[in-house]
Amino acid sequence: MGVVIPLEEGKNKQASVKPLVDLTKADMDRVKQLILYKDGYDVEMIPEVANHLISSGGKRLRPMLTLASAQMFGYEGEGHIKLATSVEFMHTATLLHDDVVDESDLRRGKSTARMIWGNQASVLVGDFLLGQAFKMMVEVGSLDALDVLATSASVIAEGEVLQLSVAKNMETTEDDYLSVIRAKTAALFAAAAEVGPIIANTDRASRNALKSYGMNLGLAFQLVDDVLDYGGKAAETGKNVGDDFREGKITLPVILSYRRGTAEDHAFWKAAIEQGDSSDENLEKALGLISKYNGLGDTITRARHYGEMARDALSPLPASPQKAALMEVIDFCIDRVN
Amino acid sequence: MGVVIPLEEGKNKQASVKPLVDLTKADMDRVKQLILYKDGYDVEMIPEVANHLISSGGKRLRPMLTLASAQMFGYEGEGHIKLATSVEFMHTATLLHDDVVDESDLRRGKSTARMIWGNQASVLVGDFLLGQAFKMMVEVGSLDALDVLATSASVIAEGEVLQLSVAKNMETTEDDYLSVIRAKTAALFAAAAEVGPIIANTDRASRNALKSYGMNLGLAFQLVDDVLDYGGKAAETGKNVGDDFREGKITLPVILSYRRGTAEDHAFWKAAIEQGDSSDENLEKALGLISKYNGLGDTITRARHYGEMARDALSPLPASPQKAALMEVIDFCIDRVN
Repeated sequence: MGVVIPLEEGKNKQASVKPLVDLTKADMDRVKQLILYKDGYDVEMIPEVANHLISSGGKRLRPMLTLASAQMFGYEGEGHIKLATSVEFMHTATLLHDDVVDESDLRRGKSTARMIWGNQASVLVGDFLLGQAFKMMVEVGSLDALDVLATSASVIAEGEVLQLSVAKNMETTEDDYLSVIRAKTAALFAAAAEVGPIIANTDRASRNALKSYGMNLGLAFQLVDDVLDYGGKAAETGKNVGDDFREGKITLPVILSYRRGTAEDHAFWKAAIEQGDSSDENLEKALGLISKYNGLGDTITRARHYGEMARDALSPLPASPQKAALMEVIDFCIDRVN
Repeated sequence: MGVVIPLEEGKNKQASVKPLVDLTKADMDRVKQLILYKDGYDVEMIPEVANHLISSGGKRLRPMLTLASAQMFGYEGEGHIKLATSVEFMHTATLLHDDVVDESDLRRGKSTARMIWGNQASVLVGDFLLGQAFKMMVEVGSLDALDVLATSASVIAEGEVLQLSVAKNMETTEDDYLSVIRAKTAALFAAAAEVGPIIANTDRASRNALKSYGMNLGLAFQLVDDVLDYGGKAAETGKNVGDDFREGKITLPVILSYRRGTAEDHAFWKAAIEQGDSSDENLEKALGLISKYNGLGDTITRARHYGEMARDALSPLPASPQKAALMEVIDFCIDRVN
């Protein structure tokens, strides 16, 4: 199912994540080594479970943000490798826990860890990875970076709880939902981007610029993810159309379509999401309503707003290959829907 | 100076606040009586100072939100009159205090209270009005409404302090600025709209809808106010073009223009805003830069985003004259720039 979005003026080529990948490749290789390092673990299952997910081929956008933002300010130490690894561990831990909470069977087209090793192992390995993340952060020795990442870890946990409280509640407002994804997704993007200038000992303005960039990029990224769930190709996303629907997840396309709908539409959504009647027939009907009320198109328009905020956040920084790559990532995140 | 904004599709007429004014006229007359009531005051200066500002002809949008949102859910008591009066008192108190903090000479084309009665009187009468506001809220007897309004009072105060911390700092990000106006302006819009359904004993979903409507309307309103300061006609706004600039206030048009500017532009803004060189020549230059970087047009685009969020917040509520009037107020707030 395709999504029609207006092309931005003057843009001729598809934005790509490649410049960011190229700039951070050498550093990312070291991050991957740290991630896959097995000797330190006494319990064999830990690296097995962790690596199942970690090696499953995500884009690793978050650690790349840390690496590029440290490079951008001329950082020459080793700390960014460990901080980037911490960020990826934190992300992996939340995915492991999410799959337990959401009772998910598949992620990126593969069985989830909980389907192979069980819920208990998934929860505990997630906790272990969080512990590893904190250990690595501490080794870097920057109290400011520790503060930012530790705060984001607690905000993420807060977001998970907040999400539970809005789960399967069709009265969730767009503001409620934004609070959830700001905490669950965007806070880690923000922290990942902010710790680069921190360990490079840059001024407060640059820290704030990167933090604001990360936060708004994270919001745009999540909103586009929400759209892809209803309009993406399984091959590209590793998800099937309607996974969120089947799990009763309330995302912005659904919120907009519900709020714009008739009393009859409201009854349908309540039965489908709140009572869990997520048959294929209902998914078809949901897709029809989302299309009728332009739920996908307007979610992308909202995502563009946050993308513009991310762009203006980064604008005043001096030109550099890293800045150009981070700017292109904004468009890449949004253009994924094409 | 005109501002070119794209017309929304399918909109033929200028949106107006008139439907809201008409619906709330009878109630607003009683609010005005309460506001201008003089017998209870032992100190004559209090009603003099308060009424100077209160009778100076603002739109009284905030108390109208409370009245309309109570009507909307069939509220039949008297409490909405007192709550609407409280809201207007809270607003007036912050204006009195703002003018002292900002050292403003004029507001809506008239001398500010502090120019006539002095700073001390302005501060103390502001405090008195806050006290009156609380007294009236308590009389209504709804703990939930008290909670919402008292919380907004403390958020507003927090926003004032936050504003001090970003004042004259050109590195202020859009996110920082949004935090300020969310607290300083939008929180009271949100509270004003939310207390209506509260005293009408409506369900949580309706409360949240009105709260979200008010919050996003407040953001859109403030952003358009920021644009008007650089592009409005003095006769309509009671402000002169560039008042914010002369006071060294950093608003979104300036933030966007600064962040998009060159190193030379950055030096200009720092001299003008941070060092306070706000000559007419510099104002001309500032207007030129704002125009070059589309600071006004993009601020309006941002305002539209919040307007759309306000619209979707209110959408699921059943049709009513109040709902239609509140919807039209969104466009009215944004179309003021025309």
